[in-house]
Amino acid sequence: MSRFWSPVVHKLTPYVPGEQPKLTNLIKLNTNESPYGPPPGALEAIRAATDDTLRLYSDPTSEGLRAAIARAHGVEMDQIFVGNGSDEVLAHAFHALLQHEGPLLTPDITYSFYPVYCGLYGIAHEPVPLDDAMRIEVADYLRPCAGIVLPNPNAPTGIALGLGRIETLLRAHPDRVVVIDEAYVDFGADSAIPLVRHFPNLLVIRTLSKSHALAGLRVGYAIGQAELVEALNRVKDSFNSYPLDRLAQAGAAAAIADREWLARTTGKIIQSRIRLTSGLRDLGFEVLPSQANFVFVRHPDRDAAFLAAALRERSIIVRHFRTPRIAAWLRITVGTDTECGILVDALGAILKQNAV
Amino acid sequence: MSRFWSPVVHKLTPYVPGEQPKLTNLIKLNTNESPYGPPPGALEAIRAATDDTLRLYSDPTSEGLRAAIARAHGVEMDQIFVGNGSDEVLAHAFHALLQHEGPLLTPDITYSFYPVYCGLYGIAHEPVPLDDAMRIEVADYLRPCAGIVLPNPNAPTGIALGLGRIETLLRAHPDRVVVIDEAYVDFGADSAIPLVRHFPNLLVIRTLSKSHALAGLRVGYAIGQAELVEALNRVKDSFNSYPLDRLAQAGAAAAIADREWLARTTGKIIQSRIRLTSGLRDLGFEVLPSQANFVFVRHPDRDAAFLAAALRERSIIVRHFRTPRIAAWLRITVGTDTECGILVDALGAILKQNAV
Repeated sequence: MSRFWSPVVHKLTPYVPGEQPKLTNLIKLNTNESPYGPPPGALEAIRAATDDTLRLYSDPTSEGLRAAIARAHGVEMDQIFVGNGSDEVLAHAFHALLQHEGPLLTPDITYSFYPVYCGLYGIAHEPVPLDDAMRIEVADYLRPCAGIVLPNPNAPTGIALGLGRIETLLRAHPDRVVVIDEAYVDFGADSAIPLVRHFPNLLVIRTLSKSHALAGLRVGYAIGQAELVEALNRVKDSFNSYPLDRLAQAGAAAAIADREWLARTTGKIIQSRIRLTSGLRDLGFEVLPSQANFVFVRHPDRDAAFLAAALRERSIIVRHFRTPRIAAWLRITVGTDTECGILVDALGAILKQNAV
Repeated sequence: MSRFWSPVVHKLTPYVPGEQPKLTNLIKLNTNESPYGPPPGALEAIRAATDDTLRLYSDPTSEGLRAAIARAHGVEMDQIFVGNGSDEVLAHAFHALLQHEGPLLTPDITYSFYPVYCGLYGIAHEPVPLDDAMRIEVADYLRPCAGIVLPNPNAPTGIALGLGRIETLLRAHPDRVVVIDEAYVDFGADSAIPLVRHFPNLLVIRTLSKSHALAGLRVGYAIGQAELVEALNRVKDSFNSYPLDRLAQAGAAAAIADREWLARTTGKIIQSRIRLTSGLRDLGFEVLPSQANFVFVRHPDRDAAFLAAALRERSIIVRHFRTPRIAAWLRITVGTDTECGILVDALGAILKQNAV
């Protein structure tokens, strides 16, 4: 406690990101990064922008990047907001669009940054339990609230929601914003972006960190009607005029333009996910049906923390959340087929060595 | 007005950054960028980091960059906070350290983002008038307040404050944070960083956008005792875990390590400022004594908006603020000697053509 701290700081419980180890030669399956490098055009665009023009401010409106997003998704320029990773975009959305009467509704098991934003911006938060199969039950969200934030597919479960159910939510809350966080949508779920033209209360949030293999470049964006984007811009321009540097704007625009690379790479990861799922089921794991680049798994008679630690000893990192309701589960990023094979073999050996 | 907007959004008056024109072949003296390219080592470090590792998240704690800052300034790692430009660092400082009883004191003529942050975080703001010579009068700040934010040198005046007067402020406000924004300090003023060890209430903020010629990379930092940095980290980790991408961390660390380049380049700009000042005075301009990489000038009988427009017709951009008290002034970035010469010649021609 410090007399210098603003009152809000004393009450914050900051987000704890997944480990970013400095060791190399680890098989890193803990933070849902892509096992493949970014689109070659993105690296070329960054190299081309690495020159003396870095002395000049970046474009505060990120026009070139927004134009690439507009073309990729068939939306208007004024329907696009970009930021320093989807985390920053989410933060601005909580600040600009979700401070209203009533609690903000999110799943109880979901991206653990959402309640942190609520703490930062003084928003009451009400976690809505997933059902027994770890699915979002839309009927539980049909009540007065400050807004709704849902990832689709959800994390860490990987389970996707159909667009019809998202439409139900949007119709039930004409005066509240529904944020659909599509960080993982490119791995098999349906995007809600086509609904944007019909629903002024829909904000879709995307990141380049997962399917575009650019977690290290920090670029995310939101798509919604201009009225919502205007609120985000007002907060952004009251916070930091230039959130994206020149290299990030150049690299992200090139990455988004390469639709062929995206289809090919996400296709490979989806195939690896199918093989990984079956390998884990063969070892006795329960594996939730994932539409993401990770799987959420538990073993009927092995402790998840033990398994995570045993994998770590074999230089494989997966994510274990010490959280009620999911303490028995592990979230495992889909790596290359080779990495997934090593993981399955390691788990097989661990189970054998420690037979119950 | 929108039913979806959070109440705070309706009241915001966002910051308006200086123009970032898409035209080339302009002489751009409007946003205090460096006329020289960044340190070569920074470009090399960025090129070296432009590879498949961009698929991985950046280091959320920016250790390598903070180590470079620690070495450059002789401070401890836990006394350093880094962010996405000093604008983001300032935003977090307002949020984390300046929400207290009483008004926040800043000069009335200063960086115009400060009152915007106050609006965003609900902080009462009281502008304290500069004296008739456009100087900060420290005696006016010796009263109860939520905190104090001063740039040193001040912008847009360029006038620096001595460390003794900053010490007076720090001693007068043992329970409040005094933020010294040193965006322009490398061009001739004294840094308050050596005071950090003596004053737990001092936070010094720096940017790489000016003296390090990296405005397009978006890196800023704060130095203060660990107690203040801890508050900034709590807000940052409740907002965005990874504010600096891999390229920005690599480039900024290399730039900060090159002290020789910094001394040489700022020395050149200081020499150009001296010549520019004398050229403008020869034309009849009043030029404030600047310790920054810009000069703040007015002509006794020419309208500043007219001069700015006439320069613009000659492809030279300078900054004119349509603000009471400084509407008669122009802020002109110190360019290369060639650019400064073209500017002075253009002003000479404009004054001649439009003789009063």
